[in-house]
Parts: sequence; structure tokens; C-alpha cells
Amino acid sequence: MSDIIAPTPKPPYYAVIFTGLRVSGDRGYQAMSKKMALLAAQQPGYLGHEAERGGLNITVSYWSDLESIRRWKEDVRHLQAQYAGREKWYQEYRVRIAKVEREYGFERG
Amino acid sequence: MSDIIAPTPKPPYYAVIFTGLRVSGDRGYQAMSKKMALLAAQQPGYLGHEAERGGLNITVSYWSDLESIRRWKEDVRHLQAQYAGREKWYQEYRVRIAKVEREYGFERG
Repeated sequence: MSDIIAPTPKPPYYAVIFTGLRVSGDRGYQAMSKKMALLAAQQPGYLGHEAERGGLNITVSYWSDLESIRRWKEDVRHLQAQYAGREKWYQEYRVRIAKVEREYGFERG
Repeated sequence: MSDIIAPTPKPPYYAVIFTGLRVSGDRGYQAMSKKMALLAAQQPGYLGHEAERGGLNITVSYWSDLESIRRWKEDVRHLQAQYAGREKWYQEYRVRIAKVEREYGFERG
């Protein structure tokens, strides 16, 4: 929710596209979500992330390599958050691991 | 904004991750955005999309192959929308083309 386009390097690198449909009520979600975003940003291989929450939660995080993604997925603090996600926050979610092959952009002059 | 997680097939397939920072004011954006979403959905190779708008606009569209992505990028009606995006809607945007290699998910039982 930083409203910043992640300043990723030249491809190739990896994107983890998380899209989730929440159940109603906070149930500790906002606090944990903030904590996990800060923690992810400290991991080796982390390049940045972009997130929006509305009817869907969409978070795209960027990583230098698959091994960094795997390590973060298995971080014990992150595992607790994933467990809570299935237990009480999400009706449904999907995680897609994708290799960014190309990128281009625009910036107002 | 359909609040539905795109029902994509088994990987591999492609994701186009668009993240943009809007300038203020609508200036025809909502109408064009809706029109483009409907038109994209009719293109060959289109698999689905997920979008949220907040501080950032994030739209992830899914495609069967790179050729379908290229054709849609060069569709004349889409080119007009891209032009308007640079002319009056966006402060900045980035488009990342990524190959989805793996996916997993969760659905409440």
C-alpha cells in the first residue's frame, strides 16, 4: 500500500502474484499484513512489491531468484501468517510464481 | 474489478502485470477502462484478469502465449487507449511480461 511502483532491475527476475478473496472482519489481518510486508522486505533476494486491497487483495512481490522465494515461503514467521490466512482471513487465494522476461514503462516528463 | 480470482489453467501461461499511478480526475478513464477490459476478454489467448484500483492501479491479465499478448498490444483500439494513458491518465506506469511457471492456491472447504 505504499503507492509506489516497485523499482525493479532489468529482467529476468521473478514475480509472486498473490490474489486473495477475504472473509469479512479484520481478525488481526491488517497488523499481520504490515508485519509480513516489513519482514519480506528484509529477505535476501527481495526486490520490491506492489499491493492493493479492494474486492480482491492483490499483492505482487518481486524477487531475484526462485531460491529466495522458496526461503521466504518457508520462513517460520511467514508460515504462521500463511496458516492464519487459511484459518481465518481468506475465502480463497491463488499464488502464481512467474518469471519476468520483459518490462517497459512510462513516466511523465 | 470483478472480484473474482481468474480461473487460469495449469501453467505454463503468461501474465501481464500492469501497475500505474494515475493523475487526478477521471478524464474518460473509467469508461475506456471498462471498454478495454471487455475487448481484451474477447481476444484469442485471453485467460482472465484481476484488477484493483487504489493509490496504484494494478491489473494482471493472463494469456496463453506471447503472440496473443503482442497482438492485443497492437490492436488499434487498444493503441488508442495506450496513447490516452500516456497523454492524460497516468503519471507513471510499468508493464511486466512474465511466464507463470507454477501456481497453487486455497479454497475454503
